[in-house]
Amino acid sequence: VEDPGEVSALAARVRAGDTRAVARAITLVEEALPESRPLLALLYPHAGDALVVGVTGPPGVGKSSLVDRLTAQLRARGHTVGVVAVDPTSPFSGGAILGDRIRMQAHATDPDVFIRSMATRGHLGGLAAPTADVLTVLAAAGKDVILVETVGVGQDEVEIVEAADVSIVVLVPGLGDELQALKAGIMEIADVFVVNKADREGGERLEAEIRAMLSLAPRPDTPAIVRTVAIRDQGTTALLDAVFEVRSRAAANGGLALKRRLRLRRQLEEAVRQRLMTRVRRRVLPPEDEERLLERLVRRELDPASAADDVVARIGLP
Amino acid sequence: VEDPGEVSALAARVRAGDTRAVARAITLVEEALPESRPLLALLYPHAGDALVVGVTGPPGVGKSSLVDRLTAQLRARGHTVGVVAVDPTSPFSGGAILGDRIRMQAHATDPDVFIRSMATRGHLGGLAAPTADVLTVLAAAGKDVILVETVGVGQDEVEIVEAADVSIVVLVPGLGDELQALKAGIMEIADVFVVNKADREGGERLEAEIRAMLSLAPRPDTPAIVRTVAIRDQGTTALLDAVFEVRSRAAANGGLALKRRLRLRRQLEEAVRQRLMTRVRRRVLPPEDEERLLERLVRRELDPASAADDVVARIGLP
Repeated sequence: VEDPGEVSALAARVRAGDTRAVARAITLVEEALPESRPLLALLYPHAGDALVVGVTGPPGVGKSSLVDRLTAQLRARGHTVGVVAVDPTSPFSGGAILGDRIRMQAHATDPDVFIRSMATRGHLGGLAAPTADVLTVLAAAGKDVILVETVGVGQDEVEIVEAADVSIVVLVPGLGDELQALKAGIMEIADVFVVNKADREGGERLEAEIRAMLSLAPRPDTPAIVRTVAIRDQGTTALLDAVFEVRSRAAANGGLALKRRLRLRRQLEEAVRQRLMTRVRRRVLPPEDEERLLERLVRRELDPASAADDVVARIGLP
Repeated sequence: VEDPGEVSALAARVRAGDTRAVARAITLVEEALPESRPLLALLYPHAGDALVVGVTGPPGVGKSSLVDRLTAQLRARGHTVGVVAVDPTSPFSGGAILGDRIRMQAHATDPDVFIRSMATRGHLGGLAAPTADVLTVLAAAGKDVILVETVGVGQDEVEIVEAADVSIVVLVPGLGDELQALKAGIMEIADVFVVNKADREGGERLEAEIRAMLSLAPRPDTPAIVRTVAIRDQGTTALLDAVFEVRSRAAANGGLALKRRLRLRRQLEEAVRQRLMTRVRRRVLPPEDEERLLERLVRRELDPASAADDVVARIGLP
């Protein structure tokens, strides 16, 4: 993809739902190649309609199986589906741990299902920005529903799930301490709780624990709790019904529009932040100046906040 | 704390190790009150010497007990100690989950031990910046060793542990999936692994698993693995010896200086970023302009990247 004509052609093929074009577009976007900018500008006007569903929870709760079953249910109801699996990556090695695992083979030949794994690209800035751009590509490609599966429940995951229209948190009986830690972050943003592997001992207790937690922090819309056994496809119809019910309710009461506006605000602010820092590095604080400033910090002649004030003063903002 | 004289007086009391002054200074710093700036500038030149030890690991592995035992061991060796427990907080409620738990009562009356819990203050920017400032206060107050205990193993925790001089990752037998997820983030930055609750079944297997993981990604300094039973104070002397050995080796081969320089670079960049965004909000993109821009994004007349370009162009950077 070199000249504007090629970018337009790629955008047209993405909009037509061409699987190879979608794959190529996502690669451009993930690697933040220069062509991704005009491409996203062409796709963005047509990316308004997809329902984005976040699926998160601790490792080992069966999120992938659940996403696989939800995909099948969505296809059976006639919806096209995009799946984005956000994989954790070492901040050092840069390689995706789960990168090459073969996912959801049942859907591999279905042209109306597009599946993609994304690796975290180092930890500065996180995954929220590239994920948003990938969602733009999939939505412009006409996917009705996009399932975003995260691994783990850290800060990145909270940000990604917050960006979803509907958030599913998956738990299993026997989490113990893990459940306590979860309370801290993701619990309050879930629209639907799933008790997966509900045939295991402790399913009812887990549901009671979730209800107890929810009662401690009452919310206007009480989240649904759905019990599933994903590998046997039990409860997944009820789960999908719950997801669509959340969407309808949020569309009716304005919650959905508010959430999408918040998502765009974050995306805009992150984009501004990145551009500013790039310019500062290029024009105001080139590497040799930064090293000199760092040397003064190391020698404790200057503190970081005062150094930052100096840098910002050099920019001479209006 | 209103006038410069009072800030100087507070700084002097902090440097003398006055516990109430340290508590007050940390509150000013955590809440980012205006006085915190001159205070930190006064303290920073005297904050160079403390050894910062990060202690992280999944919930329930006994980090608090271990920190308690390490504190006792450090005191027995004549070191003064600071403890910072970084607690997860809901991004919505703003309250610390573990906030008021009574920690480490054994050390509560020891003037040479200072213990403080910090809550995450929303998720933008994370905890790295305020934690760094709290470390400056404790180091300037003359604490020889500062133990930073994190809850959980998300992105925030990786950043905090990366900022430590020596990083301890605590695990227990029977983690299963959790151990797999850990590989992704924190495993590669640990200087010392602790197998806590090592009297449980599976202690040897866990140690073997850690060794196996380490052999997959060989590093110049092979991390030590120490077995402990923190609640019975077993293995904690060996752990502390391992920590000091890492410190000595890193001081000798330049690794420590490099790490501290990296830490300062991050702190500087974060401070520049925050200042820039504050100014952009105040002068280039006031709320009413941002709402107008957002409205155009919502109507999909403009994409977020192009909107960000517009905003940055208005700034007119050199």
